[in-house]
Amino acid sequence: LNVYFFDNCSDSQVSDFSQDRGYLFGDGFFTTGLINKGQLRHEEYHYQRLQEAAQRLCFARFQISLLKPELITRISHVEQAVVRITVTRQKNQRGYGFKPDDAINLVIQLSPLPAQVRSTCHLVFSSIPISCNPVLAGIKHLNRLDSVLASQDLTGDNQEALLCQHDNVICGSRSNLFIAYQNQWLTPDLSQAGVKGITRRRLMDLMTQENIAVKETQITQAMLLSCDAAFLTNSLWGIWPVSKIDNKIVATELSENLKLKLKFEA
Amino acid sequence: LNVYFFDNCSDSQVSDFSQDRGYLFGDGFFTTGLINKGQLRHEEYHYQRLQEAAQRLCFARFQISLLKPELITRISHVEQAVVRITVTRQKNQRGYGFKPDDAINLVIQLSPLPAQVRSTCHLVFSSIPISCNPVLAGIKHLNRLDSVLASQDLTGDNQEALLCQHDNVICGSRSNLFIAYQNQWLTPDLSQAGVKGITRRRLMDLMTQENIAVKETQITQAMLLSCDAAFLTNSLWGIWPVSKIDNKIVATELSENLKLKLKFEA
Repeated sequence: LNVYFFDNCSDSQVSDFSQDRGYLFGDGFFTTGLINKGQLRHEEYHYQRLQEAAQRLCFARFQISLLKPELITRISHVEQAVVRITVTRQKNQRGYGFKPDDAINLVIQLSPLPAQVRSTCHLVFSSIPISCNPVLAGIKHLNRLDSVLASQDLTGDNQEALLCQHDNVICGSRSNLFIAYQNQWLTPDLSQAGVKGITRRRLMDLMTQENIAVKETQITQAMLLSCDAAFLTNSLWGIWPVSKIDNKIVATELSENLKLKLKFEA
Repeated sequence: LNVYFFDNCSDSQVSDFSQDRGYLFGDGFFTTGLINKGQLRHEEYHYQRLQEAAQRLCFARFQISLLKPELITRISHVEQAVVRITVTRQKNQRGYGFKPDDAINLVIQLSPLPAQVRSTCHLVFSSIPISCNPVLAGIKHLNRLDSVLASQDLTGDNQEALLCQHDNVICGSRSNLFIAYQNQWLTPDLSQAGVKGITRRRLMDLMTQENIAVKETQITQAMLLSCDAAFLTNSLWGIWPVSKIDNKIVATELSENLKLKLKFEA
């Protein structure tokens, strides 16, 4: 047990840790990406996601032009790593209240690349429902307790857990879902819950460009269980074909063909 | 803009800030209470809330017997203050995954007492819907972005904002709601969303003890707008009678009578 004590009744002792609203309330947002040869891969997608989160969560001070030079300084010498970029609001008043132009904290964290995942994924339905709020849906914000608890479903052979809102599948605990269903690629509508991943966006842009139809729509558990193929996306894996959902075997051919055809990499 | 950089690729630099999952994911819980003459008021209620949150969020290492001596050391000399006690999980692996017996951080923060609120409250419906998830509902966890955004509705004369799930009123951005409706006290059912405040619990226990009926149930916006009285509760205010909801005047007599009858203090 680490114990930290901050007496904010006296002026003498002010700690950034206890004054960060990311820590206090989850008041912030982040992105996680790959660094390769000193560059953040697909950086424009990361910047666009951060900018959109800043706008929706009223972080008026956040600007990509402030982030870029800070990031470049820290990563230009890095051969390969994972970077997490987190933006939070500084505390300037009591309680939940804030002003849109409150000062912000930027944290840049580098970690080693994770171990490679297997070539195909065993997916399970999580016992944890997804948190729903249309004003927060889509944003990679810091309120991630549903994904945290869903991680407990990753036991044995299960490599990713799928969070649902009642009967609708929304996304994996750390990924987005695509399915081939009745000759069309579908991905869940994320207007009520879930995170809009940058790899999801990148793939949808590329599919549109290549005239491969893909539709954001409601996907029920029954639709998923009768799909012709399914795969997961995130910034670390790119496209990850699903070979099993609960105990049902899923064919991976359509997923693998799509990945090859688009030459899609993380 | 404060910039923090952590290179976790090398072993040399490890910061508690970047390794705290409260900061990374909102993975933790808290309570806020009053200290008076070296004592946390209604401490058993605070301990019970923390214990329940720990159990529901799988913090197996959290024990009141660990917290108590740490807290006593920090507050026994304090005449009056607000204390926030926050418990978070330490990072020990990549991503959302954790083990129930992972090490935890405890943060104890003291702040001066807030300014007194006015004798009655002007309540408005927030433009922000409440975040819904039955596995998180009731817990004062660190995923508080809905309350954060709802704080922006506290403009002009509006002193508290009410968060709803569709047509059902759930709670204030920092308080619980009680209404007098058809000769009975009601308070919203919090099984899908909202925080179960310790003052709410304390009041319900006392009412039951005094044979005053109070029922947890679904409360619609229409019911609220036709109530005979309404009040808000939290640890800092105790009972706060509502005198206005949006533009509708609400009588405060029943609320004030209840407060007097029970001699209910924060």
